[in-house]
Amino acid sequence: MSKTDIIDEVLNDFSKGFFGLSHENRRKLLLVLSREYDVSRTQVRELIQQYINLEIPSSERAQSPEHDEQALLSAFYRTERNLRHALQPKYDILFERLNTHPGGLKFLSILRADLLSMLQEENIASLRALDSYLMEKLVTWLSPAALELHQITWDDPASLLEKIVAYEAVHPISNLIDLKRRLGVGRRCFGYLHPAIPGEPLIFIEVALLKNVAQTIQEVLWDNPPTPESQATCALFYSISSTQPGLAGINLGKFLIKRVIELVKRDMPHITTFATLSPIPGYMQWLLAKLASQLKLAEAESEEEPHSSKGTSGSTFREDILQPEEERAILNSSVEFTSRENGMEVLLKLLTSKNNEWTSSPRLLSVLQAPLLRLCARYLLQEKKRGKALDTVANFHLQNGAMIERLNWMADRSVKGICQSGGIMVNYIYRLDKIEENARSYFGEGRIQASCDLQRHIEVIAIHDVLLHSKVHEH
Amino acid sequence: MSKTDIIDEVLNDFSKGFFGLSHENRRKLLLVLSREYDVSRTQVRELIQQYINLEIPSSERAQSPEHDEQALLSAFYRTERNLRHALQPKYDILFERLNTHPGGLKFLSILRADLLSMLQEENIASLRALDSYLMEKLVTWLSPAALELHQITWDDPASLLEKIVAYEAVHPISNLIDLKRRLGVGRRCFGYLHPAIPGEPLIFIEVALLKNVAQTIQEVLWDNPPTPESQATCALFYSISSTQPGLAGINLGKFLIKRVIELVKRDMPHITTFATLSPIPGYMQWLLAKLASQLKLAEAESEEEPHSSKGTSGSTFREDILQPEEERAILNSSVEFTSRENGMEVLLKLLTSKNNEWTSSPRLLSVLQAPLLRLCARYLLQEKKRGKALDTVANFHLQNGAMIERLNWMADRSVKGICQSGGIMVNYIYRLDKIEENARSYFGEGRIQASCDLQRHIEVIAIHDVLLHSKVHEH
Repeated sequence: MSKTDIIDEVLNDFSKGFFGLSHENRRKLLLVLSREYDVSRTQVRELIQQYINLEIPSSERAQSPEHDEQALLSAFYRTERNLRHALQPKYDILFERLNTHPGGLKFLSILRADLLSMLQEENIASLRALDSYLMEKLVTWLSPAALELHQITWDDPASLLEKIVAYEAVHPISNLIDLKRRLGVGRRCFGYLHPAIPGEPLIFIEVALLKNVAQTIQEVLWDNPPTPESQATCALFYSISSTQPGLAGINLGKFLIKRVIELVKRDMPHITTFATLSPIPGYMQWLLAKLASQLKLAEAESEEEPHSSKGTSGSTFREDILQPEEERAILNSSVEFTSRENGMEVLLKLLTSKNNEWTSSPRLLSVLQAPLLRLCARYLLQEKKRGKALDTVANFHLQNGAMIERLNWMADRSVKGICQSGGIMVNYIYRLDKIEENARSYFGEGRIQASCDLQRHIEVIAIHDVLLHSKVHEH
Repeated sequence: MSKTDIIDEVLNDFSKGFFGLSHENRRKLLLVLSREYDVSRTQVRELIQQYINLEIPSSERAQSPEHDEQALLSAFYRTERNLRHALQPKYDILFERLNTHPGGLKFLSILRADLLSMLQEENIASLRALDSYLMEKLVTWLSPAALELHQITWDDPASLLEKIVAYEAVHPISNLIDLKRRLGVGRRCFGYLHPAIPGEPLIFIEVALLKNVAQTIQEVLWDNPPTPESQATCALFYSISSTQPGLAGINLGKFLIKRVIELVKRDMPHITTFATLSPIPGYMQWLLAKLASQLKLAEAESEEEPHSSKGTSGSTFREDILQPEEERAILNSSVEFTSRENGMEVLLKLLTSKNNEWTSSPRLLSVLQAPLLRLCARYLLQEKKRGKALDTVANFHLQNGAMIERLNWMADRSVKGICQSGGIMVNYIYRLDKIEENARSYFGEGRIQASCDLQRHIEVIAIHDVLLHSKVHEH
């Protein structure tokens, strides 16, 4: 059988039988694909030998009319192209073929979702290489040029609208009335559609037209009647949801936001501010882990040096997460806490209390507001992973070229909002003339653009550090 | 400046200034791009060294749970991926960026058209590599999955219809009435649109719904009223035109034809035959060249061996293009020819006569019909270049999986039809269940599927060869 015949059989097996296979058999199939239909190493090594033997033309940059020079260069380019092709795994042919088949792109997206979940379970090098290659292919096929921007309205088919309800990941849509409101006056919804996956937006964004940048999600979702559209000056992006788990890591949102801004600007020139009202989904997880690890460090230290006074520890990992006045306020907030000596312990207990009781107590809310906002600013501006913001939503908007504008206290009182973000929401601002510059400096140097308002929180920390530092020195 | 900054500047220069540049300056710009933004050879050589130093894991195919094995494999895959990326020229970034810009895809198609015309003028290795790379990118972006099949009707915007008139390459549209007829009852027109190039089909196909496979283009283009659609059993593709010279070599037609067949089959189950009525654009050029070269060979031989008799020559290139009875008929067709002894000479003279006079003479038409049809079958079935049919239209349909069904005498009497194809047109037949098999055997072994009718012409040649051969032996 020729290579083409084999691949055709695999293709048939794939498109017919894949969905019927058990998880274990899918895993086996993907393993075979990743190993048996991989790069031809013999061919690569042969071409590498050819390439090494070719002399780099010395006058490569000079324009040389001589025939020999051109022939030599041709051989050089040809070997490079052949090597480039030889480095494509054989499964590239399968992916390419599937992509030209009806339903093939959707199938590949589902296949990648499977791959991702298998890689969550175990890290297999060949599967990871398969995934990384498939993702590169998907990026090319889902180029923004191939996507159609579609305004989703109440006139769209129910089969499309049902997908919006199903995939809204940020603020779940409770019923048809809720959906109708989100598509109605004062609001917009836009999606990116691909010709090969009709009737199903790959990603969609919900927009509210407002007088000012909203501070709470309640006013965005529930205010009725909304601001008259002619009086709106702000387009607020309050939700962006991807419908295909298999497209994880492919940033379609960046282009969608840019195109929506251009469209809204053209149709409604009176709208001059483009902002988001976004969750900070990783904030509480980070803070609770931080508190727990500091408490453990403190415990370990007090066991080692029972007589050493607090705050002057030699451990480089040890830090005071709370400022002295914040700690004092927390300890003073209730008689049951005054007996304890550690504010972090109390804070951890409060934040993990059943049913988030702290959010029902005006006194606790007012005591926790300052430290939670300050630590949130620190989390957004300073906590990084490989030079990028630790928070996924922050990283998303920053790499798209947005800046962090404002933190909003008790902006989302839903259970999810409290548990993930401590009820805080953040406004990111998109300035069309700054998008490219911001994105570049974030990518290149990891620089995060933020308003003075947000910077001030950090400055407070800095002053606090200086004070702490000088104390240590005095000691 | 970082690489990104430089590329951004190039991008701006490109999209703003390119169209304003003179041909010479475009050429210079493309030369700079192809040479200065090429593959980084230093990086490639470094990675090749790394790759050679990596040991191929021995138990590559066996599933190995050990951590070391997985780490080794990861390094292997990573180096391969890095090498694959390093082998991408730097101008890849420019192409990718342009593709995400509005109008960028169209721009790249124009840029490639420029490149192709420059390469016609002179063969520069770096420009050829640039073109070959850009074509690969365009193939990926213009994947059939990203294209929308659109039925073009009289209700489409004039700006789109004007493009149909402008780009119809096979049978020019003479006026609005002609256009309206081609979009009206009994006819169809389908185009492939790409979301990034709205309102302008990249390729379109014209279809006539007929009772039988048409034998002349006149009945397809001019019959009015046409066959009632309910009585049609044949969808005849009589014209397929590409609108973008920059997409040369990218076969969108194959997918367009397949999708149109599927669509027509679904909507009109009574249509069971899918055929073309196609020109043979390279036939006359091939035949005239063949006649001229044979006459030259014959002349050279008669000078060398003035006493040697005709037809028994030792030259391997020498052949009798005409059969004896054909030659006799041609020489007998007019008193002015009888004095000459070479039928090929007369045929060449007739075919190159001013205003194609031979087509106005019923006598000449009847004399030439047999040899021209026979030679046409030979041209289509046997004349190849690199294993593929020499005729571009034949190669197009054969690689799409069609078979050659029938030759039609005096099927296109237009000046173009006479000059290119000797007035002959050919029907190719598409059988959905055979498309893949035919395409594969054509690709793999260069096998051309043809009807018995066409094969018979070749068999005549074969018998003639045997006779000639035995004559030589007798001699």
